[in-house]
Amino acid sequence: MNLAEQYTQIRKYSEKICAPLATEDYVVQPIVDVSPPKWHLGHTTWFFETFILKPHAPAYQEFDENYNYVFNSYYETVGNRVIRTDRGNLSRPSVADVYRYRAYVDEAMTKFLNSDIDATLIELILLGFNHEQQHQELLITDIKYILGNNPLFPAYDTNWKEVDLLKPEVGFINIEEGVYEIGYQGNDFHFDNELNRHKVYLNAFSISTTLITNAEYLEFIDAGGYQNFNYWHAEGWDWVKTNHVVSPMYWHNIDGAWHNYTFAGLEKLNPNQALAHVSYYEAYAFASWKGMRLPTEFEWEIAAKHFNWGQRWEWTESAYLPYPGFSKAPGAIGEYNGKFMVNQKVLRGASVATPENHSRITYRNFFHPPLRWQFTGIRLVK
Amino acid sequence: MNLAEQYTQIRKYSEKICAPLATEDYVVQPIVDVSPPKWHLGHTTWFFETFILKPHAPAYQEFDENYNYVFNSYYETVGNRVIRTDRGNLSRPSVADVYRYRAYVDEAMTKFLNSDIDATLIELILLGFNHEQQHQELLITDIKYILGNNPLFPAYDTNWKEVDLLKPEVGFINIEEGVYEIGYQGNDFHFDNELNRHKVYLNAFSISTTLITNAEYLEFIDAGGYQNFNYWHAEGWDWVKTNHVVSPMYWHNIDGAWHNYTFAGLEKLNPNQALAHVSYYEAYAFASWKGMRLPTEFEWEIAAKHFNWGQRWEWTESAYLPYPGFSKAPGAIGEYNGKFMVNQKVLRGASVATPENHSRITYRNFFHPPLRWQFTGIRLVK
Amino acid sequence: MNLAEQYTQIRKYSEKICAPLATEDYVVQPIVDVSPPKWHLGHTTWFFETFILKPHAPAYQEFDENYNYVFNSYYETVGNRVIRTDRGNLSRPSVADVYRYRAYVDEAMTKFLNSDIDATLIELILLGFNHEQQHQELLITDIKYILGNNPLFPAYDTNWKEVDLLKPEVGFINIEEGVYEIGYQGNDFHFDNELNRHKVYLNAFSISTTLITNAEYLEFIDAGGYQNFNYWHAEGWDWVKTNHVVSPMYWHNIDGAWHNYTFAGLEKLNPNQALAHVSYYEAYAFASWKGMRLPTEFEWEIAAKHFNWGQRWEWTESAYLPYPGFSKAPGAIGEYNGKFMVNQKVLRGASVATPENHSRITYRNFFHPPLRWQFTGIRLVK
Amino acid sequence: MNLAEQYTQIRKYSEKICAPLATEDYVVQPIVDVSPPKWHLGHTTWFFETFILKPHAPAYQEFDENYNYVFNSYYETVGNRVIRTDRGNLSRPSVADVYRYRAYVDEAMTKFLNSDIDATLIELILLGFNHEQQHQELLITDIKYILGNNPLFPAYDTNWKEVDLLKPEVGFINIEEGVYEIGYQGNDFHFDNELNRHKVYLNAFSISTTLITNAEYLEFIDAGGYQNFNYWHAEGWDWVKTNHVVSPMYWHNIDGAWHNYTFAGLEKLNPNQALAHVSYYEAYAFASWKGMRLPTEFEWEIAAKHFNWGQRWEWTESAYLPYPGFSKAPGAIGEYNGKFMVNQKVLRGASVATPENHSRITYRNFFHPPLRWQFTGIRLVK
Repeated sequence: MNLAEQYTQIRKYSEKICAPLATEDYVVQPIVDVSPPKWHLGHTTWFFETFILKPHAPAYQEFDENYNYVFNSYYETVGNRVIRTDRGNLSRPSVADVYRYRAYVDEAMTKFLNSDIDATLIELILLGFNHEQQHQELLITDIKYILGNNPLFPAYDTNWKEVDLLKPEVGFINIEEGVYEIGYQGNDFHFDNELNRHKVYLNAFSISTTLITNAEYLEFIDAGGYQNFNYWHAEGWDWVKTNHVVSPMYWHNIDGAWHNYTFAGLEKLNPNQALAHVSYYEAYAFASWKGMRLPTEFEWEIAAKHFNWGQRWEWTESAYLPYPGFSKAPGAIGEYNGKFMVNQKVLRGASVATPENHSRITYRNFFHPPLRWQFTGIRLVK
Repeated sequence: MNLAEQYTQIRKYSEKICAPLATEDYVVQPIVDVSPPKWHLGHTTWFFETFILKPHAPAYQEFDENYNYVFNSYYETVGNRVIRTDRGNLSRPSVADVYRYRAYVDEAMTKFLNSDIDATLIELILLGFNHEQQHQELLITDIKYILGNNPLFPAYDTNWKEVDLLKPEVGFINIEEGVYEIGYQGNDFHFDNELNRHKVYLNAFSISTTLITNAEYLEFIDAGGYQNFNYWHAEGWDWVKTNHVVSPMYWHNIDGAWHNYTFAGLEKLNPNQALAHVSYYEAYAFASWKGMRLPTEFEWEIAAKHFNWGQRWEWTESAYLPYPGFSKAPGAIGEYNGKFMVNQKVLRGASVATPENHSRITYRNFFHPPLRWQFTGIRLVK
Repeated sequence: MNLAEQYTQIRKYSEKICAPLATEDYVVQPIVDVSPPKWHLGHTTWFFETFILKPHAPAYQEFDENYNYVFNSYYETVGNRVIRTDRGNLSRPSVADVYRYRAYVDEAMTKFLNSDIDATLIELILLGFNHEQQHQELLITDIKYILGNNPLFPAYDTNWKEVDLLKPEVGFINIEEGVYEIGYQGNDFHFDNELNRHKVYLNAFSISTTLITNAEYLEFIDAGGYQNFNYWHAEGWDWVKTNHVVSPMYWHNIDGAWHNYTFAGLEKLNPNQALAHVSYYEAYAFASWKGMRLPTEFEWEIAAKHFNWGQRWEWTESAYLPYPGFSKAPGAIGEYNGKFMVNQKVLRGASVATPENHSRITYRNFFHPPLRWQFTGIRLVK
Repeated sequence: MNLAEQYTQIRKYSEKICAPLATEDYVVQPIVDVSPPKWHLGHTTWFFETFILKPHAPAYQEFDENYNYVFNSYYETVGNRVIRTDRGNLSRPSVADVYRYRAYVDEAMTKFLNSDIDATLIELILLGFNHEQQHQELLITDIKYILGNNPLFPAYDTNWKEVDLLKPEVGFINIEEGVYEIGYQGNDFHFDNELNRHKVYLNAFSISTTLITNAEYLEFIDAGGYQNFNYWHAEGWDWVKTNHVVSPMYWHNIDGAWHNYTFAGLEKLNPNQALAHVSYYEAYAFASWKGMRLPTEFEWEIAAKHFNWGQRWEWTESAYLPYPGFSKAPGAIGEYNGKFMVNQKVLRGASVATPENHSRITYRNFFHPPLRWQFTGIRLVK
């Protein structure tokens, strides 16, 4: 596929994700971490307009100058923006306006991508593609939050079904002590935070080849895991008590039977599926209760070639920090990753919401410890 | 008109108010005081379903039992409810669902109202009518807030126009000292808070026959009214400083020229219109600056027969308190007025948003001192 | 007594109140409403220094210019000040410094009061006396809060004892309908908020001649008063739930037996004493449960000549508003009362903490509805 | 020195630190991170009473059972405790009471330490010594905060003086790439978080042999460092804007000249002293502005043998995480370090407030990124 075809394919997929939505579902922002779907659709469009079309496409006419204010996410370089908590207060631009905006930009982008593009722009264009793919994952998880926290529990797709997790005979594999190489190597797209490729020294460790299931996590709940501070970080324990947390997100105990909200609606909890929607605090507490621990991101990257991964983002013990030699790009693009490298945890793997072709063994996802509206799961090390 | 015709007329007017809205405009709740328009449409419907149809209409089938949770406002008697700040987080029921709910209840209500109704129910039915009319006013002011705080400043009706305020030759009229009677007298609909009719003793006073205009309020701004604590209550001054208030709501100083948002969009400020959208704190400070004061609600009620009123809700100096002999009705209906009789101020008059036939000289509106998204204005006494 | 003698007597009494304190007790501010005792001692001194000595005493040398910043309470006219919530963060000036400050100012004031004073200053001097007396009451209630909320429950005076409340045979007296006069009349000291004396029209009412006792309030608790929203204002009910209120302040249920903290320490609750330390919300709810109501401040003022009052501040149903013809004094003294006339309730009577000679039948005390660290009680009207 | 002598020496030093204080200075808690000095004195005493005397000293009688509630810091194992924000609300136990408590426990401890102690207790006793030494550092920094944020700027010791920082000729030293060993090795006291000693792989780096001075940091301020988001983490930039940060803590720009509060009082800023009282955000931003970075804690530990360190705690780029093989001790002592290993940054070195014999090259201090009331400074790597 050439760039224009790739562009079209990626852009169409964002809209396909939103196809089952009612207009109203595009608008709301029930918590600050969740953005309205129409905002995601507009913001990814604004990214192409702002960083590709306006500076590089001759004679491009901006769709609407107010959209710069509405759809900027966090780029201080680019100017003022709607504060994040206010995204759900904006009924306009309407959903139809946003789709018109997309069509307008898509037409210009397609024309531009089919023209003679300066090779130095390719990297930025690919960043735009990957940026949209990241928002596709957020779209899916934000939609789940919007529907799954509605008292009517509307389904997104009544045919949605996740496969069960098969537990293999060999549960843990051993990795030997030694110096290993970490980070991206190659010529394909990758984020700046995956560089530099560098050496780390790892002690020997054993890592599970499978993720924790709902059934395994239920044992933790039934053993009083949420009532015993010993398993928790101090701030994790505060989080449990302040928020009255007693189970993963989307779990509901109805008349003594555990249910969870999936995209198909509220259902009986399937014990054999991979656990999802736990915070780092819960992942750590569960591991403590098991007498094990979470992998570091380096252990994960070295071990992951030996097992299947994907379907869940896996909390690691590693803080999100720059690799040796990391440097930010100049200008707005430099705000992409580096400025978030404090107080967040690295997650590795990929989830059911991750777009195809958007996962790599060196990919570093990152979220704050209490967040759990992503498809986050647990893998253990001993 | 008989009851069924009245019902139909009132119910249609709520929908007429919403006719210019985009679907998205029905959904958002930018501040806690503003409810999503679809919530108003659903809640007023729930009121008829809950208090009339379910207890009194034989064989009535509830539309959806979940709606009781979604559309209850503050009736503790009736059960749990969506907390007020979460109304804007609900994308479902959709706008179409809410209109279906209205049609379903309207059909049942019409049938019921055309049947042989027990006379003891009339008062409750009329309360339902007046309740919907109160929400019509809120619908209009909430829509204004939703559109007027959107960075795109969309118009609600590009033909909207308010008449100018004519200043008569005689500005103040005198009312003599003496015992006067206050409160509702008659056999038509009225709220419990307008009773008992009772005597008050008033000192002599002079009251303006017209409302304050934008031009007059501009003088206060230009004289540094928002910078001088002397004119303000202590908590009003805190409110000014904490919220960086420098003008009434919807006013914008663009390159030195005052504009305000009206239903027709963002426009140059018309100096001759009645001032609107000030808090009680601002009304009090303005009066102090003028060396005058606001009327009490009793002074207003006695004087108002001598001048034209309406178009603005007028802040009074009176706190919202029970009249002598006031008593709450038993059950949920008793939660209508009495439980709010603390820490609020009485407003008298009526506004451009008040439905026809929903104003009386004895009507007691009430809001907290800092609120100003209603069409609130100022009349002075000396 | 001449002015200098009066001054000395009042000033000594403030220090006598503090005599039982440890140095540490002078320093803390456990809630924003409570000020550290050393702050009260300094602030009342600052009042005389700022409003009397500096402008009127020739050659007076300010004790320490920084004290103006530390001991100003809320006088915007006079300049910046320590924000109220920070009073308990200041270890300096030390308690000894504050007593040195008092001695210094007392010497200058005594000299000044013994000199030939301009008659126009008398009113201001008397205001200073009354101001210090108001802080004497606050000193007592703030000390009670500081000691009574300490986990060690230290006693202030182990000999402290309140007399029981005798219930007379005739419980309620009747007041006839008619026009009555309200407000201060005479030539002695009074606050601006007691003027103008004016006429009010009262309906007939019956008022209890005694205050509610602890035993009577216990019946309300035992009847589930704190669990039934019907008795409460909407915001009172929120206050109960948010703060998990189940009894008056200082009450502790220890192994099923009610105790309360008094100045003598933690003791078994005396059922025959006048109830104290309830909020307006509780006073209103109790009255509702009884099927009665609180008096208005006007009813109280007319009726109080017929019964004994004092020992508790009595919540009234009246909001704190200006009397007809009320006007603020110019300058800082004008900030004394008027700027608080919004969102507060009037209390009438006097408490065990009120200094002798500081109560009048026309005296208007005022606090916000949720506050209850004053000696606040209940009298009913039917 | 034997254990009893060591004990006495350490305990005396805590009291020596407090010797210059007024009684009032022992009581206040101006921010949640700062504890009242009397609380530190009581808490370290409670530690010996709770973990040594009560379980191990035969016939020991608890001083006061309420003190367990008052002086427990964060040990969930041991029971309820005064919430951290309330420490400054407690006037009792008085300072004299706390010293009596210390004397009582010291007598019992001395007797116990002079008896025949089970060897397995030595580690716990040494932990008690080190625990008190940690609180000695906090005592010093908390006292600085209490005095340095008082509007009177009282001195702690008018003779206090810090030496200037000499800048050597060779500013940076080079460390070669390779595998290095990190963590404590030996038989002396150390914390569990310094283990296991383990290998890390380091890339080559150059590290400054001196700390940043006030003069160097002033260049950053003068270059607009606090106004340019590019140098900051996203959450660091929010912190700057929300808190209006324009300089390190204790700096005051008075009429254009920079001053800072030292233990000797408010003084002209000495440009040649080591910068102190910056947050991690500021340390990071300063390094970014310089085109350099902060060291990791591993780089620091390897390089520090080649230069002088101490006088400032140095922010590192490392998050506070467990070393390979880290495990918590069972029981309350296990709550010492492990449960804080999330969302904090490691600091290495030692400060002017660190007690003698309480610093090691493997010592891991940790604080949250925005905190800066410790003597925190900056060392750069390139």
